[in-house]
Amino acid sequence: MNIMNNNLLYEGKAKRIYQTEDEQILRVVYKDSATAFNGEKKAEISGKGRLNNEISSLIFKHLHAKGIDNHFVERLSESEQLIKKVSIIPIEVVVRNFAAGSMSKRLGIPEGTELPQPIIEFYYKDDALGDPLITEDHIWLLKAAVPEQVKTIKSITKQVNPELQHIFEDCGVRLIDFKLEFGLDAEGRVLLADEISPDTCRLWDKDTNEKLDKDLFRQNLGSLTDGYEEIFKRLGGISSCIK
Amino acid sequence: MNIMNNNLLYEGKAKRIYQTEDEQILRVVYKDSATAFNGEKKAEISGKGRLNNEISSLIFKHLHAKGIDNHFVERLSESEQLIKKVSIIPIEVVVRNFAAGSMSKRLGIPEGTELPQPIIEFYYKDDALGDPLITEDHIWLLKAAVPEQVKTIKSITKQVNPELQHIFEDCGVRLIDFKLEFGLDAEGRVLLADEISPDTCRLWDKDTNEKLDKDLFRQNLGSLTDGYEEIFKRLGGISSCIK
Ligand SMILES: Nc1ncnc2c1ncn2[C@@H]1O[C@H](COP(=O)(O)OP(=O)(O)O)[C@@H](O)[C@H]1O
Ligand SMILES: Nc1ncnc2c1ncn2[C@@H]1O[C@H](COP(=O)(O)OP(=O)(O)O)[C@@H](O)[C@H]1O
Ligand SMILES: [Mg+2]
Ligand SMILES: [Mg+2]
Repeated sequence: MNIMNNNLLYEGKAKRIYQTEDEQILRVVYKDSATAFNGEKKAEISGKGRLNNEISSLIFKHLHAKGIDNHFVERLSESEQLIKKVSIIPIEVVVRNFAAGSMSKRLGIPEGTELPQPIIEFYYKDDALGDPLITEDHIWLLKAAVPEQVKTIKSITKQVNPELQHIFEDCGVRLIDFKLEFGLDAEGRVLLADEISPDTCRLWDKDTNEKLDKDLFRQNLGSLTDGYEEIFKRLGGISSCIK
Repeated sequence: MNIMNNNLLYEGKAKRIYQTEDEQILRVVYKDSATAFNGEKKAEISGKGRLNNEISSLIFKHLHAKGIDNHFVERLSESEQLIKKVSIIPIEVVVRNFAAGSMSKRLGIPEGTELPQPIIEFYYKDDALGDPLITEDHIWLLKAAVPEQVKTIKSITKQVNPELQHIFEDCGVRLIDFKLEFGLDAEGRVLLADEISPDTCRLWDKDTNEKLDKDLFRQNLGSLTDGYEEIFKRLGGISSCIK
């Protein structure tokens, strides 16, 4: 199989997706682009693509090992991986263990407040509309997914959260919140997809509350790659957290 | 009972609420103030208070007749009514039969699109936060109401919608959307409260799509009181629609 052809299917803000000769397998190239605030803030940050690819590969492999099916096939190189092709469901599924970011602003709950239970939110994946918060009724109205699929999405999400919490806890990192995407595979089954990385999680050092995620870039708090490198080192570079 | 004392309990954007000598009964005075966009746009419009009081009185009386319990006690004068005191649940319950306003902007659905089913939305009643859209999980998190109360709120709301649709249909008006508020009475029961008026409903003439509601003010489309007077006339002035 020639996986290195250059049939670009889609270029997003963070990744380029190529078709391979296997109709069901895609190659993802993680880019060094950083974007925030719906693309309003942009930068090229050397090393970011590599770090997100490495971290996302480690995490998806770990989820597989824990019995949580997902699109990850294999790491190809430091900034590339193979994934199963899905038709992405246009919903961003956000899990919050602590209040932060838009939830804090929206509901007036101070950043870092631990929530009595994890909260799952849905956002409509539509850059032109600014990814608005939506309810399950809106998902139905927009035909973004059918109720049975939403049920499956919630069920998988509730399995993923404790697994991620454990991974990060084991390396001294608090999982504040994260975003998941799902797609439908060739058989129409809901499959966990996209990436899980410091671009899509809020990760705070457990002792110092230091931010080790994209908020470094959003809020100009320091070197993004220093934070991501720290996460990678703790997760896999020293192979101490993911066993 | 001296109902005309001047013990002002609360002054809102549209109404003043006075305690009466009966601890459980309040007097509401409808004001001539119009506000929109979370108080950014303001005006005094002579006659607005009277029209909203008259229209809201007619509608709540009609809902009573249809077996839908609510806070309305009696109309006192053209701009005053007596209501049962409740502790307001800080949620604005919005029902949408057609897309309009914030839903159209938020989800990119053109104004006037008929929804395949009515959609119920919850907004957190908090001026400082700009009344954000919230989910049932947020209601729980914010302790705005317990799940059992939310269930009752949704059940009453689903009874109110067809009643209002019928009232307005009978006078050639399309009920695009509306907002309800609920409170807890002295026994802790959920009771329909606040007002139902052209301030809180979107009402379009069935044939011409002419707007006869607060959008006249929000969008500078013409005389607010002309629209409200037309609604009052159709509803009660000619006593043809509410029987
Ligand atoms: N397994 C998959 N199959 C098909 N598309 C995928 C898969 N995983 C992720 N994608 C999609 O790849 C696109 C590129 O990713 P990204 O650069 O993050 O895009 P975006 O700017 O839309 O967030 C996104 O639309 C994402 O949803
Ligand atoms: N039956 C009731 N008992 C107590 N308060 C009520 C009742 N019905 C409505 N209210 C409240 O009266 C207040 C005044 O109304 P309004 O002027 O519309 O205020 P606002 O600016 O908060 O919308 C509101 O907070 C409303 O929720
Ligand atoms: Mg993305
Ligand atoms: Mg009000």
